[in-house]
Amino acid sequence: MPSPRKIEIIPIPGMPLVKPGDDVAALIWKTAKKQRIRLEDGDIIVVAQVVISKAEGSVVRLKSVKPSAMAEIVAERIQKPVGMAEIILQEAKSIVRFRRGHLITQTRHGLICANSGVDLSNVSGGDAVATLPRDPDASARKLREQLMKLSGKKLAVIITDTFGRPFRMGQVNVAIGVAGLRPIHDRKGEKDLFGYTLKVKEIAVADELASAGELLMGEAAEALPVVVIRGYPYQESEDAGAGELVRPAKYDLFI
Amino acid sequence: MPSPRKIEIIPIPGMPLVKPGDDVAALIWKTAKKQRIRLEDGDIIVVAQVVISKAEGSVVRLKSVKPSAMAEIVAERIQKPVGMAEIILQEAKSIVRFRRGHLITQTRHGLICANSGVDLSNVSGGDAVATLPRDPDASARKLREQLMKLSGKKLAVIITDTFGRPFRMGQVNVAIGVAGLRPIHDRKGEKDLFGYTLKVKEIAVADELASAGELLMGEAAEALPVVVIRGYPYQESEDAGAGELVRPAKYDLFI
Repeated sequence: MPSPRKIEIIPIPGMPLVKPGDDVAALIWKTAKKQRIRLEDGDIIVVAQVVISKAEGSVVRLKSVKPSAMAEIVAERIQKPVGMAEIILQEAKSIVRFRRGHLITQTRHGLICANSGVDLSNVSGGDAVATLPRDPDASARKLREQLMKLSGKKLAVIITDTFGRPFRMGQVNVAIGVAGLRPIHDRKGEKDLFGYTLKVKEIAVADELASAGELLMGEAAEALPVVVIRGYPYQESEDAGAGELVRPAKYDLFI
Repeated sequence: MPSPRKIEIIPIPGMPLVKPGDDVAALIWKTAKKQRIRLEDGDIIVVAQVVISKAEGSVVRLKSVKPSAMAEIVAERIQKPVGMAEIILQEAKSIVRFRRGHLITQTRHGLICANSGVDLSNVSGGDAVATLPRDPDASARKLREQLMKLSGKKLAVIITDTFGRPFRMGQVNVAIGVAGLRPIHDRKGEKDLFGYTLKVKEIAVADELASAGELLMGEAAEALPVVVIRGYPYQESEDAGAGELVRPAKYDLFI
């Protein structure tokens, strides 16, 4: 057993507001530099989804949307603007639950969450929404490559969003895009303290890292979309992605 | 907005194996001292459930159990020892799903998880199981009081277990017992970056703290059941508990 070292969650304060077309890697790099934060080999850069969506232009003005009849019904039931309801439906592959004022959909990425991950907050004050990045794993890979080039360090990137969940109150941050690390640490077959072989032990470490990052992000009233997690000995991977965290319907007992 | 400070997740290595009747607070205190870890005001002590269960004697030898006919059926389907199946059923208030080799129950605490949280690993090598603590919030409160007395510092305590979840692969650590902090940070009504008022924003920070703690606990192959989280500005509470994290059935779309 390796001697465990401390893990640090380090804020990168002072990120400017991101606009469509912005180079997020360059902004993070510049901001970190100004704050005298030097990236190190093994650092995990945790980035809030809204930053990526905005930079990639995944923002829709509500006025520009032509709502369907279905959107009118949805808007009334979930108490959101009708333009937003239309975008939620467009972003959905299927509707998983639509009850008691809540719309739970499966997005085209396979993510199951409220309102297809479409969000009014931190976009422009209520007249536009951000949708999830088109391909969050690709966004994470690109951001990782650029940050590794800028820093000369071996890094991993996690793009996060805040999801509710069944059975438990409150929302937690999860990983919707991953690059550079295995999102699930499979410990099946390892022995426990007494030599008993663990039969079920697949830890969703990317989601735990996303949640750890949110502890800082959330306290800064949305003004801290990027944090660094240092000291976590993740399993490196050049091809893993957050898609591995999406449970296939045939293995799900609750859809 | 307060300037965000770094959060640290600090291991307390070297905890001895816990036996029924052991004083967990004294063991943590002694181990931390030996490792020259000084607790500070605001520290959150994250403790794996199995330690509490063992100290409280929530351990059952499989041989001592008289299995029911139902337990025989369950054991075969979930591929566990029949004695364990009997204990799982005894710990369950209701069966939420029983399909495809998986038994998801609601425990008497209201927790929804696989096998009523009954676990073979890290107990005694396969011939006994640990059940969840009878009252994890009470266990957390007691541990907090004792550690605060020993250290003279203001602390919070989270007792954690590793749960699977719908929709997403892999397990994550969640909070099953909480003392000293509000488990949910309600940010409804706060303004976002653009002055838009957040309508839905209740973050389950205790679960995020539990997940953050697991990042260290999990990597040490179960030999690290206690970690300290330092620097997280939690909302203090003398009466909050992990019960607040359990979603009442009437607010759940998936039971």
